[in-house]
Amino acid sequence: MDPICSNDERTKEAMIRTGIFGASGYTGCELIKILSCHPRAEVTFATSETYTGGTLADLYPAAPALPLISAKEAPLERIDVAFCCLPHTASMPLVQKLRRADVPTIDLSADFRLDSAEAYQRWYRAEHTATELLPEAVYGLPELNRAAIRNAKLVANPGCYPTGVLLALAPILREGLLAEPRVIVDAKSGVSGAGRTPSFTTHFVEVNENLSPYNVGHTHRHISEMEQEAEKLAGEPIHVTFVPHLLPVSRGILSTIYVRTAKPLSAEEWVNLYRQAYAEESFVQVLAPGQLATLHHVNYTNRCAISLTPVEGTDTLILVSCIDNLVKGASGQAAQNMNLMLGLDERLGLE
Amino acid sequence: MDPICSNDERTKEAMIRTGIFGASGYTGCELIKILSCHPRAEVTFATSETYTGGTLADLYPAAPALPLISAKEAPLERIDVAFCCLPHTASMPLVQKLRRADVPTIDLSADFRLDSAEAYQRWYRAEHTATELLPEAVYGLPELNRAAIRNAKLVANPGCYPTGVLLALAPILREGLLAEPRVIVDAKSGVSGAGRTPSFTTHFVEVNENLSPYNVGHTHRHISEMEQEAEKLAGEPIHVTFVPHLLPVSRGILSTIYVRTAKPLSAEEWVNLYRQAYAEESFVQVLAPGQLATLHHVNYTNRCAISLTPVEGTDTLILVSCIDNLVKGASGQAAQNMNLMLGLDERLGLE
Amino acid sequence: MDPICSNDERTKEAMIRTGIFGASGYTGCELIKILSCHPRAEVTFATSETYTGGTLADLYPAAPALPLISAKEAPLERIDVAFCCLPHTASMPLVQKLRRADVPTIDLSADFRLDSAEAYQRWYRAEHTATELLPEAVYGLPELNRAAIRNAKLVANPGCYPTGVLLALAPILREGLLAEPRVIVDAKSGVSGAGRTPSFTTHFVEVNENLSPYNVGHTHRHISEMEQEAEKLAGEPIHVTFVPHLLPVSRGILSTIYVRTAKPLSAEEWVNLYRQAYAEESFVQVLAPGQLATLHHVNYTNRCAISLTPVEGTDTLILVSCIDNLVKGASGQAAQNMNLMLGLDERLGLE
Amino acid sequence: MDPICSNDERTKEAMIRTGIFGASGYTGCELIKILSCHPRAEVTFATSETYTGGTLADLYPAAPALPLISAKEAPLERIDVAFCCLPHTASMPLVQKLRRADVPTIDLSADFRLDSAEAYQRWYRAEHTATELLPEAVYGLPELNRAAIRNAKLVANPGCYPTGVLLALAPILREGLLAEPRVIVDAKSGVSGAGRTPSFTTHFVEVNENLSPYNVGHTHRHISEMEQEAEKLAGEPIHVTFVPHLLPVSRGILSTIYVRTAKPLSAEEWVNLYRQAYAEESFVQVLAPGQLATLHHVNYTNRCAISLTPVEGTDTLILVSCIDNLVKGASGQAAQNMNLMLGLDERLGLE
Repeated sequence: MDPICSNDERTKEAMIRTGIFGASGYTGCELIKILSCHPRAEVTFATSETYTGGTLADLYPAAPALPLISAKEAPLERIDVAFCCLPHTASMPLVQKLRRADVPTIDLSADFRLDSAEAYQRWYRAEHTATELLPEAVYGLPELNRAAIRNAKLVANPGCYPTGVLLALAPILREGLLAEPRVIVDAKSGVSGAGRTPSFTTHFVEVNENLSPYNVGHTHRHISEMEQEAEKLAGEPIHVTFVPHLLPVSRGILSTIYVRTAKPLSAEEWVNLYRQAYAEESFVQVLAPGQLATLHHVNYTNRCAISLTPVEGTDTLILVSCIDNLVKGASGQAAQNMNLMLGLDERLGLE
Repeated sequence: MDPICSNDERTKEAMIRTGIFGASGYTGCELIKILSCHPRAEVTFATSETYTGGTLADLYPAAPALPLISAKEAPLERIDVAFCCLPHTASMPLVQKLRRADVPTIDLSADFRLDSAEAYQRWYRAEHTATELLPEAVYGLPELNRAAIRNAKLVANPGCYPTGVLLALAPILREGLLAEPRVIVDAKSGVSGAGRTPSFTTHFVEVNENLSPYNVGHTHRHISEMEQEAEKLAGEPIHVTFVPHLLPVSRGILSTIYVRTAKPLSAEEWVNLYRQAYAEESFVQVLAPGQLATLHHVNYTNRCAISLTPVEGTDTLILVSCIDNLVKGASGQAAQNMNLMLGLDERLGLE
Repeated sequence: MDPICSNDERTKEAMIRTGIFGASGYTGCELIKILSCHPRAEVTFATSETYTGGTLADLYPAAPALPLISAKEAPLERIDVAFCCLPHTASMPLVQKLRRADVPTIDLSADFRLDSAEAYQRWYRAEHTATELLPEAVYGLPELNRAAIRNAKLVANPGCYPTGVLLALAPILREGLLAEPRVIVDAKSGVSGAGRTPSFTTHFVEVNENLSPYNVGHTHRHISEMEQEAEKLAGEPIHVTFVPHLLPVSRGILSTIYVRTAKPLSAEEWVNLYRQAYAEESFVQVLAPGQLATLHHVNYTNRCAISLTPVEGTDTLILVSCIDNLVKGASGQAAQNMNLMLGLDERLGLE
Repeated sequence: MDPICSNDERTKEAMIRTGIFGASGYTGCELIKILSCHPRAEVTFATSETYTGGTLADLYPAAPALPLISAKEAPLERIDVAFCCLPHTASMPLVQKLRRADVPTIDLSADFRLDSAEAYQRWYRAEHTATELLPEAVYGLPELNRAAIRNAKLVANPGCYPTGVLLALAPILREGLLAEPRVIVDAKSGVSGAGRTPSFTTHFVEVNENLSPYNVGHTHRHISEMEQEAEKLAGEPIHVTFVPHLLPVSRGILSTIYVRTAKPLSAEEWVNLYRQAYAEESFVQVLAPGQLATLHHVNYTNRCAISLTPVEGTDTLILVSCIDNLVKGASGQAAQNMNLMLGLDERLGLE
């Protein structure tokens, strides 16, 4: 019995061999579940230093019984692509090793998302020790950066908050429709976003029947990504005021975004503009006027749902953007990036 | 066995006799629990048209076995104060009857919160049929309106959202510290705020593991109260952009409020300003700089917790305001108003 | 954009055309999600009387935008198999019509699960008006009844509670290992098992932070199925004491089962016995000694996880059995039955 | 502002001075909240080794800002009664010290619940190092042991599971109504029962949308208490099969109990028998026939709600017993014991 997927129908074509580094966290596990059902990929090995010798099923009751090995023993020559699910700073030496071995790499940490070592130092308060790789690293948001990802050997998978926020803002930034170069993002995230390490913050009794803001204002590290990519889209610096809240759910991020716009459009016009912008996209769902995005639109999918509501009599537009933080916000997007890097249909394994 | 409170120690002084109209909803039940433990009050009768003949314990397992009678049979001459927990528009004829009988009345509906019948018509899309009572109705937010409440015979208990928002904004509005006359309120409410009537919106499976915005922009009826009272405090019209979200918790409202301020104050200065403003208040808790208000600060209490975070390098101030929607947002505040109207210590039964 | 599945790879072989009657409930929606990803099936039509003219996406934000038609207009000649997701008693006339049209049918209601009209009358307090179909109806628990299902034209899809309980008890009943012909089942179910119709029972505030037993003892209708099928397995009548509880989760059933056994086996021996019994099964997971089944083992899968713990020094064996009530307990099992009836690999679309 | 209680009305009589050892856990915090509102008690000091120098409000947003001192510095001479909320084994030396100082003590750990050091060693796998105190320790379940508690200087506050189970079983055990000396207890507990220390077991993502059995069979330590006290009530050894489950709620324990009875009584007769047995009790609520106990009957109260359902045609009786694990299952019961030890009305501070 294969608890996740039968490979029977997948043997006709050569399978892509993947290696997962840091498999014991929530993103590692989710990625393995996705790849186990991918028609063209297989997991060749998965690493965990803490749980070396065990299997993924020891950690997650519904996961496949994949053996966990030490990264030191991982046979790099036997994989076609690597995923790094390590914490930031831990990722840098591993990615260096992978790139020296010429393994195409998708890094889910923050280590290669920022263009400059200075920005990294400023936001992450750690030295960047793999600056030689920064020029080749591509920010892996396929809807904004597809061509570069197709040619990339190192993809920096975006953070969960930036994914939902940037997809919501991109059309308006590209069109230059902001009345002022600042946006307010009021975001709410499920607890899996805080990782699997037990802490008082993630204790059931502290989260349940509660809602907690954290890193209020201009302090959360994901702001660095949002502002960097927003500036590229807008052609000018954009200031992001950001208030994340810890929500008593396991999965999902909902971002309520407040912007002032230069052009008074109706709800229908905004929806049309966004539907045109995302006409070719499989994973962006622009809701009809009057509908509002919720976590239930996106959980357990690779989709981003976006709703648009102009505030009558004002220049304010309210966007609501939802993603599943473990799928489009992490492992699903990583698989989407893999598909692009390897020339496959972007949607494989994600529908 | 008295399931809630022993009255043994309460008999020394004459007890205040209360009548509860519309006892079967969440606010009615919460009010009865509060009054049952109040050292100076007792519930003389409770009405429910739907459940006439039953008891409150039939509806709520932990509630006292108080008989529910029809409002038609309620002996108005035997009570010292009435609480109306009926839906808006249903409250108007009952309050008229109570005031004709000269019963001091606290109305928990929206019917007497707005100063003008026109505003009521505009926001509630219903004719106001008790306009003769509007001049005497006092908006029952004790921290802002204590003197008037003390002398009132008809108190309009505020809405849940406006209570938390107005307490958070009052000091800044009074001091004229807004840089522009508009605020953004991103609010999140527990499901008891949606009432006890079963609907798809309150179905467990729809709410659980979800977050849903609703009435986005400038459409929620509570905006009328917020803008009316904010204007009184500020001396100029204030525009409130308001996005409420339905949160998968039973109780509590957290409002994240974004304002631009005319004066650059540090976190310490903001906290000092608010602590001075609320120095005499028992039910407003201004958190220390760096602390952030959460639902756990306030649930099952009559408190409003407020935190203040200026965004460095900008003129934006982020306030987080939390209340228990059933206590400070409804029934606790109603009891606080009763205490004031009857010359008691405002805190009785609420600590 | 196809929000659920791309059919690109499914066109090589003729697709099985399915019709879903009663698509608006939780089981209907789950079934459509499963079939939409099934490599050999497609949904030809879906019916709903309440929502005729709308689409499934109007009801469920993540569902495909499938039009909902009236059952009266459903083109029976265009489908290869029908699924009835109607409530009990409503199913009977529809199944009669489908069988008259010679459409292979899987009925998810209770109408064809009991062998005798008398038992149906006794447990469901309604007359059975399609008794002519009872002889051909096959109880659709594939792990116990696979051969009959393969040849069936009418399959009665089992109830959610009986599925988990019978899979847990089957090996012990077949082997005659009970010391007395009675079992105690303490079951806990997520709220989707109570259906989508709003009621006080399913109101978020009533379910959340609560646990509620219901139909305690020998009264729940699913007992009729459990006892009927248990008797077939054991060759003698088995009495089931059954206490279901409503659990504050959306999905999943965990049944804790207490039996006294005729033979003192160790945990290892029990696990071996069960692993042998289910050696060929793809969807039964017998946990290792010392491991205990939880909802997280099975949710969003078609699996049943079973753990076995003998109580040292006694003849008591404690089984814990978990399923996802919407998948193995309803729609997943229905798809499994369809696969069997149509000669496909039983696992298609379910892994 | 006193965030919990005004003491204004409590100064007429001398206040009982209490010391809380181990105040930082959930039971310590709950106890302090209860005592802070107790009309005749006050908290003189609270200790915590981990958080020495901080206040309780640092740990719990809604708790009073009580300073936390080291136990070494606690002025024993200034208190009238001590509460020990330390883990088992840590309690023994402290209780020895308190008793040497002649401070009446209520110990919330398991260290003095078992009558014999051998039993302690067997169940807790630790040596009992304060055996000299075992003879004077009284098992603090007031409804069963009130007279002894009134005269005790050392009360062992019962475990949370035993409290609900023993109250449910006591009448039937005392009357000798069991058909066989064994009972099955299927218990479900909220997460606060697992304590405040972060672990994978209490991680939100692991608990949420899950249900997990643990310590299945005859292994959970609380069985020792249940069997010890049940034997005293029944006059013969009673075997308890016990399966606890971790429930995704913060508070509350529901125990579903299966017994075979020697006498066939109707639901009404069982209820009458229990209501007579508990006629004088303030904190035991025997539900009417047909009603079923739920967590909502008892949460945030010191009550135990019990429902009784005989299974028609069998000798099986199903009891459902609910308590709030932090109140009647720990800190409320401790306050009840204090009231008894000090000659106060048992209900003070608990209603």
